[in-house]
Amino acid sequence: MTVQESPASAFDRATMQRCLELARTAIGRTAPNPLVGSVIVNQGNVIGEGFHPQAGEPHAEVFALRQAGDRARGATLYVNLEPCSHTGRTPPCAEAIIQAGLARVVVGMVDPNPLVAGQGIARLRQAGIEVHVGIEATDCQTLNEAFIHRMQHHQPFGIFKYAMTLDGKIAASTGHSHWITSPTARQKVHQLRASCDAVIVGGNTVRQDNPHLTTHDQAGSNPLRVVMSRSLDLPTDANLWHTAVAPTIVLTESGANSEVKAALLKQAVEVIELPDLTPQSVMAQLYDRGCLSVLWECGGTLAATAMQQACIHKVWAFIAPKIIGGSGGFTPVGDMGLSQMTEALPITRLNIQSIGPDFLLEGYLPVENPVINDPIP
Amino acid sequence: MTVQESPASAFDRATMQRCLELARTAIGRTAPNPLVGSVIVNQGNVIGEGFHPQAGEPHAEVFALRQAGDRARGATLYVNLEPCSHTGRTPPCAEAIIQAGLARVVVGMVDPNPLVAGQGIARLRQAGIEVHVGIEATDCQTLNEAFIHRMQHHQPFGIFKYAMTLDGKIAASTGHSHWITSPTARQKVHQLRASCDAVIVGGNTVRQDNPHLTTHDQAGSNPLRVVMSRSLDLPTDANLWHTAVAPTIVLTESGANSEVKAALLKQAVEVIELPDLTPQSVMAQLYDRGCLSVLWECGGTLAATAMQQACIHKVWAFIAPKIIGGSGGFTPVGDMGLSQMTEALPITRLNIQSIGPDFLLEGYLPVENPVINDPIP
Repeated sequence: MTVQESPASAFDRATMQRCLELARTAIGRTAPNPLVGSVIVNQGNVIGEGFHPQAGEPHAEVFALRQAGDRARGATLYVNLEPCSHTGRTPPCAEAIIQAGLARVVVGMVDPNPLVAGQGIARLRQAGIEVHVGIEATDCQTLNEAFIHRMQHHQPFGIFKYAMTLDGKIAASTGHSHWITSPTARQKVHQLRASCDAVIVGGNTVRQDNPHLTTHDQAGSNPLRVVMSRSLDLPTDANLWHTAVAPTIVLTESGANSEVKAALLKQAVEVIELPDLTPQSVMAQLYDRGCLSVLWECGGTLAATAMQQACIHKVWAFIAPKIIGGSGGFTPVGDMGLSQMTEALPITRLNIQSIGPDFLLEGYLPVENPVINDPIP
Repeated sequence: MTVQESPASAFDRATMQRCLELARTAIGRTAPNPLVGSVIVNQGNVIGEGFHPQAGEPHAEVFALRQAGDRARGATLYVNLEPCSHTGRTPPCAEAIIQAGLARVVVGMVDPNPLVAGQGIARLRQAGIEVHVGIEATDCQTLNEAFIHRMQHHQPFGIFKYAMTLDGKIAASTGHSHWITSPTARQKVHQLRASCDAVIVGGNTVRQDNPHLTTHDQAGSNPLRVVMSRSLDLPTDANLWHTAVAPTIVLTESGANSEVKAALLKQAVEVIELPDLTPQSVMAQLYDRGCLSVLWECGGTLAATAMQQACIHKVWAFIAPKIIGGSGGFTPVGDMGLSQMTEALPITRLNIQSIGPDFLLEGYLPVENPVINDPIP
């Protein structure tokens, strides 16, 4: 059979891409679990497919195995992430694969979860199954970059999204900012939101823009909406307090405005008092809640602090083809205390795409402990 | 003969592109004249080529005709701009073409110069020559956009170049800006400068950056270097005063610092006192000197005034993949009094290209009296 002749044939790569496509179906809904898709192929025919829909539900391989049934015997299973070897909320997938009699397993990447970390692959090999690892590895790692980051750094993956004019402003001199980008770019933002588990703003954004921070009519789930406000000096009526649409948490410090607190609680907004309200303490809180990726949609001052505290790992910068001018107060990133241009934070792996008349520049900030690719066993 | 069968065959278009290539040879050196190249083809063979090297020298057609000699009889002449019909510093090209016995002339675009404006084409047709107009017209118009603008608006074509970080800053909070972009992008700036007739900065740029504003080791001529300084509060020693490298003019108002004025004159810097020093009066001065394109390489405050006074028609925005942060004082375009985002100046025909690790975004600002394409006669 052709697919077994070469460890990374064009068929293997195409089938792994199908796994990624299946995995993406559940984008924004699997936290704290990764995005996983699986395909089973026998004699060149696809006999089973599946993806992990959300935490507590079976893993992707289980759905694929169920669909394949007895025909799985002697077949090849493809999966973008190493099958698990431990019993979590569900039994280990490696055992299920062995019991189904699969002959070969093609794995996109090793699971960075220390409870797995190569043991799933080892278990399969022990049982005499031929295992290939690292097929379409870069795409597999990109799809689960937030999951990998969370596992390796014990922190959610922070993304900072902003929209600016070609002269670097996020608002006119009055603060007016509706709209910088085109409807097409704003739709793209809704899609990006749907891929994140939480979205964070500061009190200023609530007071000035009264945002919804939902995915609007776009496919995909709404992220948890998070407001950071030390003073709780917030309006008691705001779009974010409509918790029937999506949940909202307000993070504050103890002793903040009790009247506003009461008004928020009445609208089913969760209010959490932290000893010290910082981007880091907020990220720790969201880590504990199982968030993989959090989207910072805040103004320049909070963004600067979040960057200084290494809470931002990726940027989504929308640039609109227009010039507004201004003394510069409304800038995407406020003062970080960097006095020399040579101290600027480098953005790596920069990618650019047209979104209607606008551009989206996407890139990565340096991570204190850089992500180390797992060795391929 | 194949080339005469179709008015815009692939051969015609390719030969017109060759004209543009020849024309570009003299980029930055022809002001106030346009960039023109010409090719003569007989029986499918190129028998003459030429370009206009600089004002006072013969036009492109004359060089091509000289090279073709007697073989021009019955041949086709290609030229990116309508042949002139008037006697300027040189005799009219239309007459020379008629006398050489050409059978066909292929013209890229009509000359916007009111002294020509279709009369060259009419003269050729009167003489029984077959004339095709509008071949590769968009490329022909782009190459001579500055010449066209100057003719139609009686003003040089103003280009604003800036380099900013991905968070919209042209310097760190201290003003430190060396360097925002990569050496590759800075080389590109030198090439762009070589295509301009003058480059303008304000006094602040001289005091803070002490720039050279030359094309350095790049091919191409140095533009005229222009400093705007109302106070003449300038250092008496600066790279721009090294006039052996390239000429420098300082534009000021009457009654400015006479000691500095004397020191500048001693270094062969030209000092001109204008009644009212504004971007508009500077553009008028440079128009009178025959400049086609002027490059604004100034800070945000002067750039804002130049935009408000409609002295900027195109932007070259370099964006570097780095984040510096800052309260925003060092922004590419200062306050223009626009309070609503909807008032922002739209940038049209935006084009983006990678320059090493950086990006160059190039686009056009609205022109008060939009450029009207000449009707094709």
